[in-house]
Amino acid sequence: MILVNGEAHSDIPATDRGLAYGDGVFRTFPSRQGRPLVWRRQYAKLAHDAAALKLQTPNVDVLEREVRAVSKDHEGCAVKIVLTRGSGARGYGYRGDEHVTRIVSAGPLPPRIAERQAGGVKVRLCSLRLAAQPALAGIKHLNRLENVLARAEWNEPDIAEGILCDTQGHVISGTMSNVFVVLDGTLATPRLDLCGVAGVTRERVIDAARRAGMPCVVKTLSWTDVLAAHEVFLVNSLAGAWPVCAIDGEARALGEVTRAVQRWLEFEDDAEVL
Amino acid sequence: MILVNGEAHSDIPATDRGLAYGDGVFRTFPSRQGRPLVWRRQYAKLAHDAAALKLQTPNVDVLEREVRAVSKDHEGCAVKIVLTRGSGARGYGYRGDEHVTRIVSAGPLPPRIAERQAGGVKVRLCSLRLAAQPALAGIKHLNRLENVLARAEWNEPDIAEGILCDTQGHVISGTMSNVFVVLDGTLATPRLDLCGVAGVTRERVIDAARRAGMPCVVKTLSWTDVLAAHEVFLVNSLAGAWPVCAIDGEARALGEVTRAVQRWLEFEDDAEVL
Repeated sequence: MILVNGEAHSDIPATDRGLAYGDGVFRTFPSRQGRPLVWRRQYAKLAHDAAALKLQTPNVDVLEREVRAVSKDHEGCAVKIVLTRGSGARGYGYRGDEHVTRIVSAGPLPPRIAERQAGGVKVRLCSLRLAAQPALAGIKHLNRLENVLARAEWNEPDIAEGILCDTQGHVISGTMSNVFVVLDGTLATPRLDLCGVAGVTRERVIDAARRAGMPCVVKTLSWTDVLAAHEVFLVNSLAGAWPVCAIDGEARALGEVTRAVQRWLEFEDDAEVL
Repeated sequence: MILVNGEAHSDIPATDRGLAYGDGVFRTFPSRQGRPLVWRRQYAKLAHDAAALKLQTPNVDVLEREVRAVSKDHEGCAVKIVLTRGSGARGYGYRGDEHVTRIVSAGPLPPRIAERQAGGVKVRLCSLRLAAQPALAGIKHLNRLENVLARAEWNEPDIAEGILCDTQGHVISGTMSNVFVVLDGTLATPRLDLCGVAGVTRERVIDAARRAGMPCVVKTLSWTDVLAAHEVFLVNSLAGAWPVCAIDGEARALGEVTRAVQRWLEFEDDAEVL
């Protein structure tokens, strides 16, 4: 089911700036029987990203009602919200009074979530390097060709994810996930001030670690750091936390910190935080 | 008028990857009474850019027929062709057998083309810096948020264009145009191997200069080079060549090389070149 501006539609205008320029933002997250998980954080991040593009975010109640509507008939599903700057005259400029297009849809959850959480996933290093653009870094916007190109680098079905570095060789993220490592006894995740997407689950892990008294730092990480790490795991809102069990064909042990993070993520912490 | 995959439609599926990820390419160019200008170059560039994303380009006759159909009732109009990877399952990956979505539409030509060609345009230096991504450089793809952000830097109606540098301070392009300068008696335009869009009119100017025996180089240019240039002009397929008559409020003389380029662009050179 797809709702476009609240109405059941499967189409959007061909003149929409989301299509023309990728002029918009999005979120993807799980919903269970019509109840979106970690909803307040998802909404807050959507509003944050929209504001970065000077887009108006629809009212939280309007969006929540639509999320519930598209997901109510599913035991579990993946909800996607897209906000675009709507249709406008040709050209990059905008007036500021465009009507935001909101698209709320539900689809299947990714396969083998529990299996991958338990047994881990194999990953590879992508050859594409992410470009440094501080004006867009961290934002989950609709300009995602780098992710598309990186994901097209491999076909092996047993490789679940590719890790991306920036042009300086710093590790940034997976193609669809954020990366954490346990290095020298400390949980660490890459800085995302030049590129990458700052996901909600990354933020939840950082907050939960702080609450649990576990040191967690946001820092520059090299590929050597990842290879030297005691544990490596990937997070996103649909997958939770995936332990990495092999990097470029080399087996890795799963670890206790990753297991603790998985337990933290079982709790929906909206009430505590926002 | 808009044709989506050859049929009169104003909508596309909300699941299209062009919207989801900007996974596609586009062209914008003039058509006179149903006759697209410099069509073979436009098609060749569209096909080149599509191939860079491993997208299939529709047959040239199919596209030309649609371009003629949308533009036949206009004395002069701007035609836009968008190709996307069509609809697919959620996720950045694609199978490779997706049906390309083609969207062909006609809109008004930009205002005051002749006036600006004659009297020149005022430009400014944008503060946004273009990110270096060699995997996408030169391609007119649908990930255009940098252009949107740069164009939003100014509101003054008498400023026609903003000039963009990369993170190293090298001049790359306008938000919607390519840049040429006459420096030390030589025509020069920026390298676009790290960012920017390599436009058809830029290519036409380079070729025409070579045919005319005028030295024309593609090189790294700094902002200081632009300020020191004897002539600065901007080109795109809809505007032709615009002399720059002021940069950040400082008046500039228009020059003879720009006038020669304008005369070259009056000829449609498809037959000679392709």
